[in-house]
Amino acid sequence: MAASPYQQLEEEFRRLHALRGALAMLRWDAAVVMPRGSADVRGEQLAALETEAHAILTAPKVSRLIERAQANSQGLEDWKLANLREIRRQRDHAIATPNALVARLAKATARAEVHWLEARRTNRFADFAPHLAEVVSLIRDRAGLLGQHLGLAPYDALVDEFSPGIATADIDGLFKALGRRLPGLVREAIELQAAQPSLPVGGKFPAARQRAVCVEVMKAIGFPFDRGRLDESEHSFTGGTTGDIRITTRLDPNDALHGLLGVLHETGHAMYDLGLPAAWRDQPVGRNRGMALEESQSLLLEMIVARSRPFLTYLKPSLEKHLGVSGPEWDVPNLYRHLTRVQRSLIRADADELTYPAHIMLRYELEKQLLSGELKVDELPAAWNDAAQSRLGIRPPSDVEGCLQDGHWALGQFGYFPAFALGSMIAMQLWEKLRSDHEDLDAEIARGDFTGLYGWLREHVHGVGAKMTVQELIQNATGRPLSAAPALRYLEAKYLEPR
Amino acid sequence: MAASPYQQLEEEFRRLHALRGALAMLRWDAAVVMPRGSADVRGEQLAALETEAHAILTAPKVSRLIERAQANSQGLEDWKLANLREIRRQRDHAIATPNALVARLAKATARAEVHWLEARRTNRFADFAPHLAEVVSLIRDRAGLLGQHLGLAPYDALVDEFSPGIATADIDGLFKALGRRLPGLVREAIELQAAQPSLPVGGKFPAARQRAVCVEVMKAIGFPFDRGRLDESEHSFTGGTTGDIRITTRLDPNDALHGLLGVLHETGHAMYDLGLPAAWRDQPVGRNRGMALEESQSLLLEMIVARSRPFLTYLKPSLEKHLGVSGPEWDVPNLYRHLTRVQRSLIRADADELTYPAHIMLRYELEKQLLSGELKVDELPAAWNDAAQSRLGIRPPSDVEGCLQDGHWALGQFGYFPAFALGSMIAMQLWEKLRSDHEDLDAEIARGDFTGLYGWLREHVHGVGAKMTVQELIQNATGRPLSAAPALRYLEAKYLEPR
Repeated sequence: MAASPYQQLEEEFRRLHALRGALAMLRWDAAVVMPRGSADVRGEQLAALETEAHAILTAPKVSRLIERAQANSQGLEDWKLANLREIRRQRDHAIATPNALVARLAKATARAEVHWLEARRTNRFADFAPHLAEVVSLIRDRAGLLGQHLGLAPYDALVDEFSPGIATADIDGLFKALGRRLPGLVREAIELQAAQPSLPVGGKFPAARQRAVCVEVMKAIGFPFDRGRLDESEHSFTGGTTGDIRITTRLDPNDALHGLLGVLHETGHAMYDLGLPAAWRDQPVGRNRGMALEESQSLLLEMIVARSRPFLTYLKPSLEKHLGVSGPEWDVPNLYRHLTRVQRSLIRADADELTYPAHIMLRYELEKQLLSGELKVDELPAAWNDAAQSRLGIRPPSDVEGCLQDGHWALGQFGYFPAFALGSMIAMQLWEKLRSDHEDLDAEIARGDFTGLYGWLREHVHGVGAKMTVQELIQNATGRPLSAAPALRYLEAKYLEPR
Repeated sequence: MAASPYQQLEEEFRRLHALRGALAMLRWDAAVVMPRGSADVRGEQLAALETEAHAILTAPKVSRLIERAQANSQGLEDWKLANLREIRRQRDHAIATPNALVARLAKATARAEVHWLEARRTNRFADFAPHLAEVVSLIRDRAGLLGQHLGLAPYDALVDEFSPGIATADIDGLFKALGRRLPGLVREAIELQAAQPSLPVGGKFPAARQRAVCVEVMKAIGFPFDRGRLDESEHSFTGGTTGDIRITTRLDPNDALHGLLGVLHETGHAMYDLGLPAAWRDQPVGRNRGMALEESQSLLLEMIVARSRPFLTYLKPSLEKHLGVSGPEWDVPNLYRHLTRVQRSLIRADADELTYPAHIMLRYELEKQLLSGELKVDELPAAWNDAAQSRLGIRPPSDVEGCLQDGHWALGQFGYFPAFALGSMIAMQLWEKLRSDHEDLDAEIARGDFTGLYGWLREHVHGVGAKMTVQELIQNATGRPLSAAPALRYLEAKYLEPR
């Protein structure tokens, strides 16, 4: 019997999945083991595979199959219907941007990245500005075309790529609710913590010993080392592919915990991938539900679980054994105070859980204004510094600590930043429900048993894949729509409790 | 101006080169760093990329472009004409085997490999025999179709894949000349060496120290560590791609020299790749000239250069520095005796330079008989043991040390074995000319200067790429056709000299 249009689509996307897996391995290799001089050769390989992948998505044959599969979709089971919807979504995103614009964007962002790195070194925003302006202009074109194609406002169309189904109106509402309470909460927490200083946890911690801690913790959580690796690279990331997940981190010999927390962040991503529906692993519906959900899973482990007394109770013997540490600064109460310290700071990547959303809101407002043309690129440094003063309560002394700190805009990633704050809020809402469903959670975590935690996440989040929208997934998992209330309850309880 | 058919072909083969490079990286990863459990995922990625590569070669569009380019080839420069010839050659090999036969062979060889590994463990040839018989039958079909397509006898068509342009008649002539003298030469060498025993060079040599020796020697030879790597894997090989060459080896802590000699073998392959014509690196004409030439380059370094007094004079201080060795057994005369020891042995992979060709001739005769049907698979063990007795002067006590030792036939690699002996003879012929052209060679090598050696090889061998046939290349490089005479002169001088 001939394959149905739907079956043929599955076959095309199975090929696409294998190509994307190969791309992921080549990128991992480039970051971890590739010799320095081989970037040109790798660039050719990546370009060739990306061209193949793009060709599958944009082939007239695939579009015809989508139409025929949709016309004959009665009788398809839920998962297949959802898969067809995701296949269409990927096709729509791919064909909305003409090849010529894709090529111009690739070149413009490559140039802008080089000049961004240079400007960050020299603190000369003006040298970077024309290149950023070119990227902004091209992204504006892209957002317009994408919006037309998807029936969304331009900025919403960009957000849809990273946080499917979430609209600017949703983000505005969530950020408004959060932003109303946060500045006061930050002030109160800082005052409270000033009365409870923590002891420094200094020392020298060789990479091999830190690695031993990381591996022990990853194994306890359930990371499968027979189908994954942990390596070092300049910037930590989760790479590879389902069935061959590769985490990287950077281990700082002067900091016993920074590398481990990075590993836990990436392990959160990896556990999401490992919990995706196995039967659909090579189809769009079997993949993760976008960057906001991804961040929710990494932040849940790094920020919520790891910076909790039960986890630190579990961790302490491991630190003692592998790092040979002892003394009151390594006791759970001090470690907890150390890891939940709140401070007003300039660099997003180093910010704590409580001040982090303000960093994102600042970028969210500015990137919308850049795209609408309301804000000119030349005016960005002043606008950034004013916003930092008002949102973070602290003014960057230089653009390196201001609008030059992140590379996302140079790379054309507009619409991405909201996912970081949304991810944090999603994590807190899931956590509230998880704890109410599972009363023994603290005791389990304190003895290094993560089966309850990940059993719940698999059932309610990971195993759903991309079968529903972010909003539906959260409604189903927690019984309520996504809102700022659980996040505020969590933050108030954590940062205003006496300790 | 629209691209000419020839230019379009170059573009197609540039894509093919990038895909093959990606494939090579994924295979390196599988052998060196991939987690044990991820083989299934990697298999899907390799299959997807191999399918894409095969689709390029067999596309009707490419065949039409070849015809049009050939019809308009007047005025094309030499390199482009040669490139067109190689493009056609690759296409011919690819389309001669129908997809259904390719798929059946892939399955049959995968099955046969599993049963070969098992039979080697249990010493039960009978369990492997039906699977080998299936492979032989399919390869026979393939050889017939390939021969028809290329206008060659079936076995010649298989040889053409590994040693382009070399016919069975050539191999017969070369092996006959070599085979006439070798048995006597082996006997004389063994008698002579019996009077000159060497001291054992034992000890414990940690992998990190052996690696330091390997890296030092590789750097002296010219291996570019900014565009290449040295790693450990179960079986040593040269992988990766031009511009990102990756050598692997296995370092035995009980043997100071085995790993290093393996590294030198692979470095010989890598240096060939590094010397290929850079302007043509992503086109068929810019690739190596087949497996016989490849083996000539690895054996030249491993067998001829490394097992020479000048090289050992250079190497000795490096061994002393990194391995901390001393004593008369580490002096050059003893090392030389140790590394040029001749003995009748059963395992090809461990054989010395002088007895090696007999191992190949044995396989060459048997594989031709298997393919012609003259020899049945069931009769192979007895035929092998008789041939070993007559050619090597020693009878395998079990099939594990006989016809089960190599995996090439299980993998369908018929026509490959001759390349090993041809490579050895080519190396000796090149070496004779190189030394007569370059009188300071010994002195240069003794002080670790390999520029004269590799300058000559680049000019006469590597830089030629696949521009001419093996025979033409050797004629041009040495002024004479490929013959057994230089090999016999080299072997007689080396193994019959008083020492």
